[in-house]
Amino acid sequence: MAAAFNSTVRLAQRPTGLPDASTWAIADEAVPALGAHDVQVRVDYISLDPAMRGWLNEGKSYIPPVEIGAVMRAGAVGEVLASSTAAFSVGDFVYGSLGVQSVYTGAAKGLTKIDPTAAPLPNFLGGLGMPGMTAYFGLHNVGQYKDGETVVVSGAAGAVGSVVGQIAKLKGSRVIGIAGGPEKCRAVVENFGFDACIDYKSENVGKQLRALCPKGIDVYFDNVGGEILEAAIANIALRGRIVICGAISGYNDMAGMKGPRNYLNLLVMRARMEGMVVFDYVEDYATAQAQMLGWMQAGKMKLTEDVRSGLRNFPDVLNLLFTGGNTGKLVLKP
Amino acid sequence: MAAAFNSTVRLAQRPTGLPDASTWAIADEAVPALGAHDVQVRVDYISLDPAMRGWLNEGKSYIPPVEIGAVMRAGAVGEVLASSTAAFSVGDFVYGSLGVQSVYTGAAKGLTKIDPTAAPLPNFLGGLGMPGMTAYFGLHNVGQYKDGETVVVSGAAGAVGSVVGQIAKLKGSRVIGIAGGPEKCRAVVENFGFDACIDYKSENVGKQLRALCPKGIDVYFDNVGGEILEAAIANIALRGRIVICGAISGYNDMAGMKGPRNYLNLLVMRARMEGMVVFDYVEDYATAQAQMLGWMQAGKMKLTEDVRSGLRNFPDVLNLLFTGGNTGKLVLKP
Repeated sequence: MAAAFNSTVRLAQRPTGLPDASTWAIADEAVPALGAHDVQVRVDYISLDPAMRGWLNEGKSYIPPVEIGAVMRAGAVGEVLASSTAAFSVGDFVYGSLGVQSVYTGAAKGLTKIDPTAAPLPNFLGGLGMPGMTAYFGLHNVGQYKDGETVVVSGAAGAVGSVVGQIAKLKGSRVIGIAGGPEKCRAVVENFGFDACIDYKSENVGKQLRALCPKGIDVYFDNVGGEILEAAIANIALRGRIVICGAISGYNDMAGMKGPRNYLNLLVMRARMEGMVVFDYVEDYATAQAQMLGWMQAGKMKLTEDVRSGLRNFPDVLNLLFTGGNTGKLVLKP
Repeated sequence: MAAAFNSTVRLAQRPTGLPDASTWAIADEAVPALGAHDVQVRVDYISLDPAMRGWLNEGKSYIPPVEIGAVMRAGAVGEVLASSTAAFSVGDFVYGSLGVQSVYTGAAKGLTKIDPTAAPLPNFLGGLGMPGMTAYFGLHNVGQYKDGETVVVSGAAGAVGSVVGQIAKLKGSRVIGIAGGPEKCRAVVENFGFDACIDYKSENVGKQLRALCPKGIDVYFDNVGGEILEAAIANIALRGRIVICGAISGYNDMAGMKGPRNYLNLLVMRARMEGMVVFDYVEDYATAQAQMLGWMQAGKMKLTEDVRSGLRNFPDVLNLLFTGGNTGKLVLKP
């Protein structure tokens, strides 16, 4: 069943600060014809991620920026409606960079088949997708996590943070989350099973970390940057590791970005701060996904998706990430 | 030949900012009697190091602060004048934490015998001492340096920086130094054999690093912090390593210390920033010293000591480190 039209969200202009309506051009377009080795995919769920903000900026980063006029880049899952390649058949479900649109028509290369009976579709954007892989490889490969170490995670109610903490809990760690507001903090402890959660909106994070991690933090998984990063550096354990996964507190004001003033505590504690990009681990995704799926099926790993509807709502829904409006993996259903 | 009196430099009060005359109490004191298992050592050369500034501050660090009223802590070399322990004989030369004084009288524990015929005595405070060990283990163990990588060193004319660069040159690297003023930069290139040296006082460090390291910096060895650290982060190569050895630019104004505003480039480049303290490698000093001595004797490693005289000049001589007044390892002869 071919699609009648394609609703798209294109980048109209580069934002300074928080994106708004003028950042985006939303339209219904004709569905392009299928070329050779192409597929047409009905986009079922679109992943909204903090990293998207970085993709809107001009200049060199770990991947090229989204061009003005292009469909906004996004990971997504959907069902194949038409195919001109032997690699995919009509009815297959796929994951890939399908973009913020209702119908993807283009190269089949880079798409991977997923099994929709193994887990709910949005899980493939969360625990089994980029956030889950980021948590897994960030904690293990960059954080050099060893079973039982003390772990602190910021953005603890988010798609990445909630998985980081759950993995570390499964492996016998004391895990402290940091999140904004009592509701999120409750979810972090009651739903995701962290030992405690610090509400950065109402508590002194440094003081709380000192009290909750008297022996210091072995692995700090940073999704937010800013003063919370400083509080973690101040409480890092000897030879602690800080995984720099993101800095959502600064994404909309890169010019005003501050560095951690107390970074010399890394020297005092012989500690390390290291950046990570999940795409580096793509060859090992399958192993990690199998592990995650095992935990999910055994009821040991809870994934929370915050599913919003309507492609036209994309501008507002995206900004929930920057205003702290979502709990768990933020997903848009076109 | 017992000493007649002991000239001492004691900590009178903790400085805020740059230490000055009021920081120190200088006096001639009676030489204490030798207890059991003690030695008396004529202090011949005293090592002056940027780290000394940190030892003057109250509060937790990698070693306890110097107490008010105590003889200022310092590594030094000298000759044993008297001994009540079988471990040392009169006439032995030793290295250890002898303090800023003309005669050390106290425990023999922690002192090590040195061979004064192997190298000039001040070398045991430079290339064969703490700075040389810092360079060696910082580059190899923390910097995870691999032969031939591009290396950038700040404080390149200093005791640590000059050795870092020479080791990397010996191992086939392109090595760029950063130092203050044309004289130091000339010494870095002509005396220590670096490929180039950027004068941070007259040149744009970021622009020069971009030009001189077009493929990025694999290992940046940081002795200074501040804007020079930011310039290095901006030019770090994929999976580059930054060794945080010191931050002399900020030592006298810790409250006003700034963090690297562009630390998120660590994420983009999957790079690492890690602190080091040389004392962690004490068990491997002998191996590194043998290696250094081999290079020195083969004429492949130049060590420059800046030897100043007079214990009473200690306050002014120490401050040369913070005003950029020395070239090479700064040493005081009491």
